[in-house]
Amino acid sequence: MTAPHINALYPGSFDPVTLGHLDIIRRAAPLYATLQVAVLRNPSKRTMFAELERVAMIADEVRDLPMVRVSTFDGLLVDYARQCEARVIIRGLRAITDFEYEFQMALMNRTLTPELNTLYMMTSQQFSYVSSQMVKEIARFGGDISALVSPAVQRLVQARIKEHS
Amino acid sequence: MTAPHINALYPGSFDPVTLGHLDIIRRAAPLYATLQVAVLRNPSKRTMFAELERVAMIADEVRDLPMVRVSTFDGLLVDYARQCEARVIIRGLRAITDFEYEFQMALMNRTLTPELNTLYMMTSQQFSYVSSQMVKEIARFGGDISALVSPAVQRLVQARIKEHS
Amino acid sequence: MTAPHINALYPGSFDPVTLGHLDIIRRAAPLYATLQVAVLRNPSKRTMFAELERVAMIADEVRDLPMVRVSTFDGLLVDYARQCEARVIIRGLRAITDFEYEFQMALMNRTLTPELNTLYMMTSQQFSYVSSQMVKEIARFGGDISALVSPAVQRLVQARIKEHS
Amino acid sequence: MTAPHINALYPGSFDPVTLGHLDIIRRAAPLYATLQVAVLRNPSKRTMFAELERVAMIADEVRDLPMVRVSTFDGLLVDYARQCEARVIIRGLRAITDFEYEFQMALMNRTLTPELNTLYMMTSQQFSYVSSQMVKEIARFGGDISALVSPAVQRLVQARIKEHS
Amino acid sequence: MTAPHINALYPGSFDPVTLGHLDIIRRAAPLYATLQVAVLRNPSKRTMFAELERVAMIADEVRDLPMVRVSTFDGLLVDYARQCEARVIIRGLRAITDFEYEFQMALMNRTLTPELNTLYMMTSQQFSYVSSQMVKEIARFGGDISALVSPAVQRLVQARIKEHS
Amino acid sequence: MTAPHINALYPGSFDPVTLGHLDIIRRAAPLYATLQVAVLRNPSKRTMFAELERVAMIADEVRDLPMVRVSTFDGLLVDYARQCEARVIIRGLRAITDFEYEFQMALMNRTLTPELNTLYMMTSQQFSYVSSQMVKEIARFGGDISALVSPAVQRLVQARIKEHS
Repeated sequence: MTAPHINALYPGSFDPVTLGHLDIIRRAAPLYATLQVAVLRNPSKRTMFAELERVAMIADEVRDLPMVRVSTFDGLLVDYARQCEARVIIRGLRAITDFEYEFQMALMNRTLTPELNTLYMMTSQQFSYVSSQMVKEIARFGGDISALVSPAVQRLVQARIKEHS
Repeated sequence: MTAPHINALYPGSFDPVTLGHLDIIRRAAPLYATLQVAVLRNPSKRTMFAELERVAMIADEVRDLPMVRVSTFDGLLVDYARQCEARVIIRGLRAITDFEYEFQMALMNRTLTPELNTLYMMTSQQFSYVSSQMVKEIARFGGDISALVSPAVQRLVQARIKEHS
Repeated sequence: MTAPHINALYPGSFDPVTLGHLDIIRRAAPLYATLQVAVLRNPSKRTMFAELERVAMIADEVRDLPMVRVSTFDGLLVDYARQCEARVIIRGLRAITDFEYEFQMALMNRTLTPELNTLYMMTSQQFSYVSSQMVKEIARFGGDISALVSPAVQRLVQARIKEHS
Repeated sequence: MTAPHINALYPGSFDPVTLGHLDIIRRAAPLYATLQVAVLRNPSKRTMFAELERVAMIADEVRDLPMVRVSTFDGLLVDYARQCEARVIIRGLRAITDFEYEFQMALMNRTLTPELNTLYMMTSQQFSYVSSQMVKEIARFGGDISALVSPAVQRLVQARIKEHS
Repeated sequence: MTAPHINALYPGSFDPVTLGHLDIIRRAAPLYATLQVAVLRNPSKRTMFAELERVAMIADEVRDLPMVRVSTFDGLLVDYARQCEARVIIRGLRAITDFEYEFQMALMNRTLTPELNTLYMMTSQQFSYVSSQMVKEIARFGGDISALVSPAVQRLVQARIKEHS
Repeated sequence: MTAPHINALYPGSFDPVTLGHLDIIRRAAPLYATLQVAVLRNPSKRTMFAELERVAMIADEVRDLPMVRVSTFDGLLVDYARQCEARVIIRGLRAITDFEYEFQMALMNRTLTPELNTLYMMTSQQFSYVSSQMVKEIARFGGDISALVSPAVQRLVQARIKEHS
């Protein structure tokens, strides 16, 4: 039996990328021909890092994984998936609240594009409480984020906070 | 980039297989080199159909999908996955209650076998309320199950109920 | 505008009827031409009270409500609703776990009988933790159930427990 | 037994009205003497359509249902219900997150006005993921909303987006 | 066996303090050597009452409880707990949504400070739907809040609303 | 301020005690004058270990904690709490499903005995998926339970399974 050539897409804000995100990327990447990590461009939302900073930050963390590509996108996710020739969207699930939102998104995306499948991975326990939002809140109050992000991302977050204070 | 050869495993009781199960199988199968549908042998639980009847019932429904294989298993799921050389377990998620149980199973399986990943697919809306348990309850009271199972399975369920009454 | 003649059905086990059930009956009854309280006959399940005992117990509590009728049923709920000419099924919701199960039942019933509607009422706060199961457990250990059931039901439960010990 | 004259109230933002809302209206309307669809006036929230546009849009969809009336309201829902002589509030439930919020609202409303009952209907499966918010997001990115709203509403949404771009 | 000297911390916004908050304080206080009620200073969020007004309001309600102290804090909760020599954080749980957020916070706080424990109390039924947010919304529309807050807080809320209108 | 003398009660089946249970005991014990670990006697439920075996197993694990006592109980929990002069019940929360059940129990216990408080601790992440039930299932199929129970409990579980096979 030959293996099908399946491209997967992992979309998110990644502001900044956490160890939870990297755990999903490292576990998903070997399962697909390519894994496209897609950073959402959302001009109406204030972010800590610009899109290209977020792309660079992720690319730096995954440079040992040849099948992972990093890009930005806007518009409808299903349109970007078609453009990437991705048949699979990867999403991490951490909790019930995630589940409900993801469930509605998955049903909507299937209505819009039936041939596109969303596959969910449970976030590893040690990262189940980690979110980009919490990383920023803790860092702003001088707390230790070394268990939540990589050393490189930690330096970037702390530098950004120092600039703004 | 060459495509990785990934085998997937879809375990369950399938007593009987529903249109919800078949929807998951048809959407998951094209994403993997092989998809092993594995019927749980559980001698302590009374079932409507014997294991081999369930295997035959599923095999009949998926005979147009060359990458799908049907078998039975008992013991730990992670051991059977290793034996099948499966790197992915596929599970359908219908609701919150599923989610909690699946979350605990996924964490446990990852502790036992870190290189094995569980991927979840949301059940299509029109099947989100379908369970094997409900199929049997409705059929026992003479209700119409044609929206819940395939015509072949419907005939088998009705024949089995007639035998027992 | 003339008022439509709507019959409603409130099914359950009522083993025994609790203050939570009676709260639902008293709030729902004035909204319909008739409210049929339907006690499920389930010969395979051991109950504390026989069906007719449960019917008598409920009828006694609602004798001031002329539009409430009490009966027993078995088979599919949708079939009994058709027989009663009920267009509405009333269900109490206490918690998330109820919600999930009820959601699946509502979707199934709608597939079987589209013209039948299920309407949910939230159980009053002071009864949100009351279930027939808990009434029986507390009573068996000699606990006080006077906040959970009516005085008449309390006497019947305590008499039944005395008989069996 | 004579039928009680019960007026029901279905409040919401309806910005715009979706097929999910219309499904609730069409199923609830025949159960009551009148069903008042009440559009919330909330000057502090930016909406795609003005209140009277939303009223006109709904009225147009339900013109075959003589017992349905459409109006706007602000202030406390329980006060508007009293003013309409409504004894029942109708709410659609799509998911757990809805459930929790609705549960708290139902308890609060009952404290404020004990004689007013909130009745919940489960949204039909095919509309369970539809929200006004999603309609607007998809339409803004040029996606197809024909499975989510009526043809007339689709034209209005697309016209409004063209004006603003 | 001697009793350990344990200080507890009960953090929140308390804008304004509700009967639900006071129920938690009155039940938790006798269990600890001291209970510090800590009002969050959050300059970026618009509140109805200034921090010191909230401190005064709470202090007035608990003046019969000698072990309760009231203060303000900002920054990371774990840092303030260390400063207060508190080994326990008290949180009220009202609903599933609370639960998820609290679960993530508890896991994060334990990572940051393993020796600090978060203990949860279920809010009493009659206050399970009360939130500061609802108190303000009802009061703004002239609704009755006497079942949600103390008479003194009710007077302060109504005075504040009159000033602003 | 003198410290109040508070006794706490931690009830459960503990068949067998897991690392998750021991984590709760070790975190809760220092917060109270005494912590009574109470093993439920339930003659109608088949267990892997007899009550006194479970008591011995727990006592062995906590022999370094002088304030922890281990006993058995049956009947209503609130009655046993009164007998132990415990003012606090400790419960671990792992997930939403736990939460709902615990919420109902907490409300019921408070109705029965208002002066008794239930305090919840979130189970540590690394134990959030561990249950006695899973320990037994994995062990029965020859899986590795060393991450779920202590070495002593592991030996006892494996010995018991060998006896029965």
